[in-house]
Amino acid sequence: MSKRPLILITNDDGITAPGLRSLIDVMNEIGEVVVVAPDSPQSAMGHAITINSTLHCSKIKLNKGPQKEFSCSGTPADCVKLAVNELLKRKPDICVSGINHGSNSSINVIYSGTMSAALEAGIEGIPAIGFSLLDYRWGANFEPLKPAIKTITENAIKNGIPQNVVLNVNMPQVDSSEELNGIKICRQAKAYWIEKFDKRTNPMGKEYYWLTGEFINKDKGEDTDEWALNKNFISIVPVQYDLTAHHVIQELNTWDFG
Amino acid sequence: MSKRPLILITNDDGITAPGLRSLIDVMNEIGEVVVVAPDSPQSAMGHAITINSTLHCSKIKLNKGPQKEFSCSGTPADCVKLAVNELLKRKPDICVSGINHGSNSSINVIYSGTMSAALEAGIEGIPAIGFSLLDYRWGANFEPLKPAIKTITENAIKNGIPQNVVLNVNMPQVDSSEELNGIKICRQAKAYWIEKFDKRTNPMGKEYYWLTGEFINKDKGEDTDEWALNKNFISIVPVQYDLTAHHVIQELNTWDFG
Repeated sequence: MSKRPLILITNDDGITAPGLRSLIDVMNEIGEVVVVAPDSPQSAMGHAITINSTLHCSKIKLNKGPQKEFSCSGTPADCVKLAVNELLKRKPDICVSGINHGSNSSINVIYSGTMSAALEAGIEGIPAIGFSLLDYRWGANFEPLKPAIKTITENAIKNGIPQNVVLNVNMPQVDSSEELNGIKICRQAKAYWIEKFDKRTNPMGKEYYWLTGEFINKDKGEDTDEWALNKNFISIVPVQYDLTAHHVIQELNTWDFG
Repeated sequence: MSKRPLILITNDDGITAPGLRSLIDVMNEIGEVVVVAPDSPQSAMGHAITINSTLHCSKIKLNKGPQKEFSCSGTPADCVKLAVNELLKRKPDICVSGINHGSNSSINVIYSGTMSAALEAGIEGIPAIGFSLLDYRWGANFEPLKPAIKTITENAIKNGIPQNVVLNVNMPQVDSSEELNGIKICRQAKAYWIEKFDKRTNPMGKEYYWLTGEFINKDKGEDTDEWALNKNFISIVPVQYDLTAHHVIQELNTWDFG
């Protein structure tokens, strides 16, 4: 690549999120950066897109630096579509999403706005990575992860990401880079949430619920993202958007439809 | 199964949608039906869940029949979580979602609220099927599809759906059952949307966008859902929520992270 790579950055915590700002810092060292991010938090939006209402987008600048920034009214997937098809002059060399405030490991990938943005870019034929830190707090410490984020992104630009695949990178909460044990390629752990609904009554006497839950991992495999993260490794799970369970097609063909 | 199966019905077009009403008709013939559906349309919500605001749920009855009905403020995935963990007395024997007004074939499965509800049920360990009709209109004709929906659901109850898999059923638009050529087990076609943003200016002079697009299928395989639907077959794609691209793990393990 003769000129500097064009890097599209987005996220689901919104354009003001510290995790996004840390990702901008790292990417400014690698290439030419354009940020197109939601104007408000979009966590747990899954792969929502805006088809029944309008989208707004404003050029803004929240931080110093060479990056261009756009704030959009839509979801993370909307931001990628708008960036690629309307705002950017050429196809980006890579799209990075995050750094999410909170885990997108295991089954959480299904609910993740961060990963839906990466998947959207992947579907558009752009190499894409979602980055998440296992720390929900707005004041989470992203500094120790910056060297690894740079290494992973440079590898992806140099080697290319396999076709029809995007990378789901989750990072443990550490105080310094020295606490990290390395980077592992993993599979998605077979874990799940046991939901609990906290039922309350509002001042008008009407019942309502808060969704809460407990994360359960019964998958003892040492090749999973959960295992790696528990051992202070950064996990990289290659994620695909062909959802076909090819291995059960033969079984389903034995069904009798009359 | 000695007693009648307990069937949970949900959708993403909202509790008043004709497609949902048709699904209730069919399921009332098969088992004991509980409907837990969004109180407003949730199309293209992907796998969104409500974690930052409250959920409301009301017992209502919109149509005659033996079914119980609940109208909820959340997304399709919220409805399933709330049904299974709070509203139902026992785990349902099957969850059916739809009938969606519009296609969820090929890459559309990624954006689908209908399928996210089915996936949510699958994750909760409940056999689940999403049904969609290739007709966006509110007045779509669901009648000719009812016998096939019944057959597919009865097969799923009798045979069980393979573990960690849910079924994505798409149905062509036909005037009568005789026009259908049968039911085919398929893979997800590798097709995509070319987005076009319709850029407009509002009365206050501010620019905004409508997302539009064209669906492109370059996948010539005769084992895809798109192929089957074009030939007036009903397509069934088994869908999995382990998104790991297991086949590229070896390649990624050659990357040099220093």
